[in-house]
Amino acid sequence: MAETTSNRMWGGRFAAGPDAIMEAINASIGFDKRLADQDIRGSRAHAAMLAATGIVKASDAEAMREGLLTVLSEIEAGTFQFSTALEDIHMNVEARLKEIVGPAAGRLHTARSRNDQVATDFRLWVRDQLDAAEAGLEALMRALLTQAEAGADWVMPGFTHLQTAQPVTWGHHMMAYVEMFGRDLGRVRDARARMNECPLGAAALAGTSFPIDREMTARELGFDRPCANSLDAVSDRDFALEFLSAASISAMHLSRLAEELVIWSSAQFRFVALSDRFSTGSSIMPQKKNPDAAELIRAKIGRIFGAHVALMTVMKGLPLAYSKDMQEDKEQVFDAADTWMLALAAMEGMVRDMAANVPALEAAASSGFSTATDLADWLVRALDLPFRDAHHVTGSLVALAERKGCDLPDLTLEDMRSVHEDITGAVFDVLGVHNSVASRTSFGGTAPVRVREQIRAWSERLG
Amino acid sequence: MAETTSNRMWGGRFAAGPDAIMEAINASIGFDKRLADQDIRGSRAHAAMLAATGIVKASDAEAMREGLLTVLSEIEAGTFQFSTALEDIHMNVEARLKEIVGPAAGRLHTARSRNDQVATDFRLWVRDQLDAAEAGLEALMRALLTQAEAGADWVMPGFTHLQTAQPVTWGHHMMAYVEMFGRDLGRVRDARARMNECPLGAAALAGTSFPIDREMTARELGFDRPCANSLDAVSDRDFALEFLSAASISAMHLSRLAEELVIWSSAQFRFVALSDRFSTGSSIMPQKKNPDAAELIRAKIGRIFGAHVALMTVMKGLPLAYSKDMQEDKEQVFDAADTWMLALAAMEGMVRDMAANVPALEAAASSGFSTATDLADWLVRALDLPFRDAHHVTGSLVALAERKGCDLPDLTLEDMRSVHEDITGAVFDVLGVHNSVASRTSFGGTAPVRVREQIRAWSERLG
Amino acid sequence: MAETTSNRMWGGRFAAGPDAIMEAINASIGFDKRLADQDIRGSRAHAAMLAATGIVKASDAEAMREGLLTVLSEIEAGTFQFSTALEDIHMNVEARLKEIVGPAAGRLHTARSRNDQVATDFRLWVRDQLDAAEAGLEALMRALLTQAEAGADWVMPGFTHLQTAQPVTWGHHMMAYVEMFGRDLGRVRDARARMNECPLGAAALAGTSFPIDREMTARELGFDRPCANSLDAVSDRDFALEFLSAASISAMHLSRLAEELVIWSSAQFRFVALSDRFSTGSSIMPQKKNPDAAELIRAKIGRIFGAHVALMTVMKGLPLAYSKDMQEDKEQVFDAADTWMLALAAMEGMVRDMAANVPALEAAASSGFSTATDLADWLVRALDLPFRDAHHVTGSLVALAERKGCDLPDLTLEDMRSVHEDITGAVFDVLGVHNSVASRTSFGGTAPVRVREQIRAWSERLG
Amino acid sequence: MAETTSNRMWGGRFAAGPDAIMEAINASIGFDKRLADQDIRGSRAHAAMLAATGIVKASDAEAMREGLLTVLSEIEAGTFQFSTALEDIHMNVEARLKEIVGPAAGRLHTARSRNDQVATDFRLWVRDQLDAAEAGLEALMRALLTQAEAGADWVMPGFTHLQTAQPVTWGHHMMAYVEMFGRDLGRVRDARARMNECPLGAAALAGTSFPIDREMTARELGFDRPCANSLDAVSDRDFALEFLSAASISAMHLSRLAEELVIWSSAQFRFVALSDRFSTGSSIMPQKKNPDAAELIRAKIGRIFGAHVALMTVMKGLPLAYSKDMQEDKEQVFDAADTWMLALAAMEGMVRDMAANVPALEAAASSGFSTATDLADWLVRALDLPFRDAHHVTGSLVALAERKGCDLPDLTLEDMRSVHEDITGAVFDVLGVHNSVASRTSFGGTAPVRVREQIRAWSERLG
Repeated sequence: MAETTSNRMWGGRFAAGPDAIMEAINASIGFDKRLADQDIRGSRAHAAMLAATGIVKASDAEAMREGLLTVLSEIEAGTFQFSTALEDIHMNVEARLKEIVGPAAGRLHTARSRNDQVATDFRLWVRDQLDAAEAGLEALMRALLTQAEAGADWVMPGFTHLQTAQPVTWGHHMMAYVEMFGRDLGRVRDARARMNECPLGAAALAGTSFPIDREMTARELGFDRPCANSLDAVSDRDFALEFLSAASISAMHLSRLAEELVIWSSAQFRFVALSDRFSTGSSIMPQKKNPDAAELIRAKIGRIFGAHVALMTVMKGLPLAYSKDMQEDKEQVFDAADTWMLALAAMEGMVRDMAANVPALEAAASSGFSTATDLADWLVRALDLPFRDAHHVTGSLVALAERKGCDLPDLTLEDMRSVHEDITGAVFDVLGVHNSVASRTSFGGTAPVRVREQIRAWSERLG
Repeated sequence: MAETTSNRMWGGRFAAGPDAIMEAINASIGFDKRLADQDIRGSRAHAAMLAATGIVKASDAEAMREGLLTVLSEIEAGTFQFSTALEDIHMNVEARLKEIVGPAAGRLHTARSRNDQVATDFRLWVRDQLDAAEAGLEALMRALLTQAEAGADWVMPGFTHLQTAQPVTWGHHMMAYVEMFGRDLGRVRDARARMNECPLGAAALAGTSFPIDREMTARELGFDRPCANSLDAVSDRDFALEFLSAASISAMHLSRLAEELVIWSSAQFRFVALSDRFSTGSSIMPQKKNPDAAELIRAKIGRIFGAHVALMTVMKGLPLAYSKDMQEDKEQVFDAADTWMLALAAMEGMVRDMAANVPALEAAASSGFSTATDLADWLVRALDLPFRDAHHVTGSLVALAERKGCDLPDLTLEDMRSVHEDITGAVFDVLGVHNSVASRTSFGGTAPVRVREQIRAWSERLG
Repeated sequence: MAETTSNRMWGGRFAAGPDAIMEAINASIGFDKRLADQDIRGSRAHAAMLAATGIVKASDAEAMREGLLTVLSEIEAGTFQFSTALEDIHMNVEARLKEIVGPAAGRLHTARSRNDQVATDFRLWVRDQLDAAEAGLEALMRALLTQAEAGADWVMPGFTHLQTAQPVTWGHHMMAYVEMFGRDLGRVRDARARMNECPLGAAALAGTSFPIDREMTARELGFDRPCANSLDAVSDRDFALEFLSAASISAMHLSRLAEELVIWSSAQFRFVALSDRFSTGSSIMPQKKNPDAAELIRAKIGRIFGAHVALMTVMKGLPLAYSKDMQEDKEQVFDAADTWMLALAAMEGMVRDMAANVPALEAAASSGFSTATDLADWLVRALDLPFRDAHHVTGSLVALAERKGCDLPDLTLEDMRSVHEDITGAVFDVLGVHNSVASRTSFGGTAPVRVREQIRAWSERLG
Repeated sequence: MAETTSNRMWGGRFAAGPDAIMEAINASIGFDKRLADQDIRGSRAHAAMLAATGIVKASDAEAMREGLLTVLSEIEAGTFQFSTALEDIHMNVEARLKEIVGPAAGRLHTARSRNDQVATDFRLWVRDQLDAAEAGLEALMRALLTQAEAGADWVMPGFTHLQTAQPVTWGHHMMAYVEMFGRDLGRVRDARARMNECPLGAAALAGTSFPIDREMTARELGFDRPCANSLDAVSDRDFALEFLSAASISAMHLSRLAEELVIWSSAQFRFVALSDRFSTGSSIMPQKKNPDAAELIRAKIGRIFGAHVALMTVMKGLPLAYSKDMQEDKEQVFDAADTWMLALAAMEGMVRDMAANVPALEAAASSGFSTATDLADWLVRALDLPFRDAHHVTGSLVALAERKGCDLPDLTLEDMRSVHEDITGAVFDVLGVHNSVASRTSFGGTAPVRVREQIRAWSERLG
């Protein structure tokens, strides 16, 4: 314990060492070690700048920069000894650096504070994750495009309220998710652009009197510019919250697709077969082939959105500038990011592997009076009925078919005329599902020709 | 009840009318009447397009467009009779239109469905609110800029952990919030750009076989383009969720400023006096002057974020395309939007009216060893100590001052030298708070010269 | 405006009247008028106590008590004029009381404050809702019991992962929800018992020097006892949060049943037919019969849980005692309570009305190798195989049946013996679904005899 | 990989092994190893029951029970090799058991499934945490009682809106938190009583045809009874949600106390000094003594409530019975439980260690017209003014004192009479803060005599 206390970098003012509970609640090294790479990148940029501006000697800066690479290689090799007594990744790295390069290491913390240091590290980490999300989203979109291309003509029921509404194409359904993940991509890019400002040099909260060059460190670390207000730079966690917002909406999209895969895999639907690679069995029911990956992806929205709620709650009502409450930011974002990336990858794999049951899709599309709207539209076009009247006539024809236990194409022309006498035999042309989908050529409609346009457009956009 | 049933537009297929509970849970007219203006705008654009494409006769379209203006004027005049039996705003408007223009009204619903209609209405409403949020944010930022300008030189304590850390300027503190609300502005604009696509023409979910012109309706309604996938167009509520995400983060910023105003108004701080206009009294304690508006704004994050949670939860796991669950979207967004706009306006008023207590701020800034960092930095610069050693020396000097019951500038040079013998009298130059803030001239730092730069930059950006 | 200001009860100290924004954010009369009945009950009890303890004259108290009844009757008759300038229900009632009984009305506020008054009103309101929830839950449980009784023998697939797992009985499935709503009932009763303490007499926060009798007012208002700490009495909103917690879990149960009803109503499942009374049609697809009520109930968890999040967020980090933030409590609880009661009633109606499709249930139960577990258990019992080995043999038999395109009972004894040679013809007894469910007689199992026991037990408990 | 696949217990039906992504998303052993003790307890009870009912031979059962103890000792000693390929704790334990006792281990899974097994394990774990929470809450309450006892007479400002309202006692303020944590205790006990039912024997979902004795296993594991419906037993996570509900409300209480400690530790308040053991310093500002533990506790509500949101979201809309989504339950509850226990312990330590600054408290209590209510009450009692008139007179006196720059006791009798001529010198008796608190003797009031009563009552209740 004596040793522990002597190691503490901010120590000395305190008569008593923090006890075990305090160490447990206070230390962040257990999780912020994930920032090691970012921390060392930031420190190396800071050291280079301190030399360039003459704040420290070039030889000292060079020693520190070399020493930091050594620390990084130790961490990557797994030989680094992390110490809880040193609280966090910053102190752990700095303490080891001191062992390697001697007292000069003490100059590294000139003109900065842990407040701007951690803000910088964490931004770098989140930025990396935004890049990873972009890649994950694009890979999933490509898998969906492949499915859409294969089944641009396949007919399936379009549901509203999980009731058969109108026939649509498999390609069209896949492309709806491409639109959703495409918007996720947009949110990821906007978030990245907004957050790409460098807090380093804000120091504790007020900036510094050393003649630092914040443009230089910002550039070196790939930021577009330094943060323009030092109080805000150390108090801001918007970038983490915006990451969690974007991840949450994306997780919601994943949950919808996952729900569909679960329902479609049921014995009652049999619309798709998932691959064995993304299914599991049961310990007691040997016949089961469960869509576990889909269920787990469906559930991940809870985890990601829970992280969002957690950090929003933490940030509520915090006065400026840094409060220790903010230390709760990292684990939530770490977990949400890992979860999002994993869910994207698992969904990509499932989508690539899944096999649509084309005959089952078509059979389902052909039942349930799915072309009733086509019939109503025909009445408008051919007989010039106002839509509301056409709707009423169609309703009566559906009721008639239901009483006869058949579907719309199975009605006779006489049946038809018993409801509206002007109906002609031409009506039967619109009652087939292939004709139905082919006819919906409005922009964004389900007609194969329209779906293929969208596939081409997205393929080009994704490059 | 017979009348009720005969009024129902989708009716006829059902033997029994929905009972009172069903009507209570199902009808949306109680809240979606707020979409009346948007609904009529959308219908007028649709009618014009139906005529331009020859789907309905020009005279019919013109009658409908005129009739819709009449309906709007009745609604605005408060003479319109809303009917729960007609379920929603769309049916209410159409039923009245039929009374006005006769059976031709039935042609209005050609080539569209309530699914794309409500999606269009709601987007238009949310877009209006994004514009209102932009205006509200800008007004608040201007109020903060005015405060910042007035107090660019005023010294106050910069806090971390609500402990005095270093002196900062009032202007700098105000500008930190300008940065925050500036990011909110960015999120609002990004959300607006992303959501500005028109669902109209997606029909129920599959598009339509009528030769509609979706570019025309999109343009007419101020959208950048039509939505590219009809299934997505009617299933998507991302625009509402992104609105709620942006509103939540903005509400978080408001909660932080509100918390500071509550704390600063306490008898113990007395940093600001809020105006009577934004304070209230007590029914039992006549001396009270309570910062009610600040407290209410602080609390609004709950309401807005609760709406976000609500809609995220609703959307979880919904299969495509439209499900009735989505009807829960509107009340949450209506309430969150109203709350956000009110909170922005109330905060703007409070910020404009509040009076900083400049002497109290300076007195607080000057106590609590607030220039200890300046001392440490001086040791680095003047004596070339490594920062970590300078930090240790400063700690000992603070401890010494504490034992003597004085602050750092009150120590004698002898006191100083008892801790580190190389210290010279020049050290006392950095221990005054005005010198301290003036010295922090790093980019984004608290020095008045830096703060004024940022005020100028933001004033130009806001135009 | 002059009049408005003169009406203000805490007024006078303030030079400027609050402006429109302040009134909009501050006034609660728009929603807390729902507490009118509770407010008047509380005031009448307070007046009686003031007389009984001699703090006010009996005649004054009697005048106030009578006057309050008059106010109540005006409110109930809809003739009461609510005023936003008077802020809240308490002030509105008191101002009107003053008009009715003259200056004596001013004595009513002796020894109390709005802080304890609103806490009392709101507790009474929440307590009423807990009673309503109890009634609503019991009614729903009775509807489920009726369904369970009718179908104690009906066989249906028991699902895990939405894959057929084992046959179960309809009655057993219904009774699973009875267990869930039974736990909700327990939570409601525990919450009621815990919150049934009276805040009245806590005054602003410190208690009072008047010789009040808190036992008397508590008793009069049906509370078990007065709150034991006056600071806590005015700061506590646990009762609202516990209400929202219980409502949220109950809403989750409702969402699960609703999801099942939506899936079961699909054309692919056809397990149940919902009544017309709880279904709706489509404006464009005349054949649709949509399970709208089920979808809306499924969505209500968002609304209720959103309210929970909202109030938890509001309460986070509030210092004692009363803060204005707490005014945000009521609308969230009002909306959640209305939503919960409506969802319970709608679900009760749907459950009562729904018709199980018994042949479809049995057909589904008989397919998908649903008795594989029975086969494995037979191997354990009859051949004394360790369960893990029996599981493996069963897996091979399922694979064999799948290859032959048949189900387990369709395999020949030879097929069976090709996998394990000791299998005898007795195995076929366990492969029928009726035998399967009848055999699961472990406590809580799906055998009709067990299910009927539970129906009896719950029927007795509900009385 | 070949080995991995051959190890899989549900394997064989699958042509392809799950790939790395599937393993990453599917395996739970990384976290459910925390259930090892509970899993082995459950298996030992199950084995004993299988023997007692004659389902397995006594010698086999005994071998399994002994073998399980060996496995447990290996896990506790850290020598156990966990395997991701074996997915979860159940499979890991069973596979090792097989190595130890041979094929007889295969009989352990007779008449149960992983579904009831994990439900049992997790209930046992949550039950242990409820017991730990009870202990943690009681310890914290005892620390608060100790503070209350020491300062039953100390006068401090009672705040509303963070404005001085009336003087209260330190003991009274501490006891307000005792009430809050006392309610938490009630919720913990109610939750424990409700969840103490045993799922074991529900098997996969339908119960079993083996003649098991569920009463025996329930009793053996300390449950009050077996779950009464097997479908519910494996689908229910209410116990986890109710745990998270109770933890969330308790975390909210902790956040309120933590917020007060942060504010009270500020240089402006100086109401308390936290101990060095629960404070930290700054890396750049040597004088800082930050209330880190209080800030971290304040933030923990985010983490705990985030877990609640996460699991509620997961459970929304899940059809019966078990879905894989439910695997997301454990990590959330593990983290929330760890966080709650740590926060309780840290708060207990801080409360024990903290030193009230009695003179600062009394000075603050004496300023800000804190006895205005006492004055108003005196006017009612002594001059028989209606309260509303007394309130108005007091308001004028406060305004007068404010103009004179003094507090109420500093006004002369002449000053008093200039506002209301009947005021006598007796009024000055009620204007001192000690008289004020002593006078508030209503039940639950702040008078030391009342506070001591409550301390005694709670001390007895806690035993």
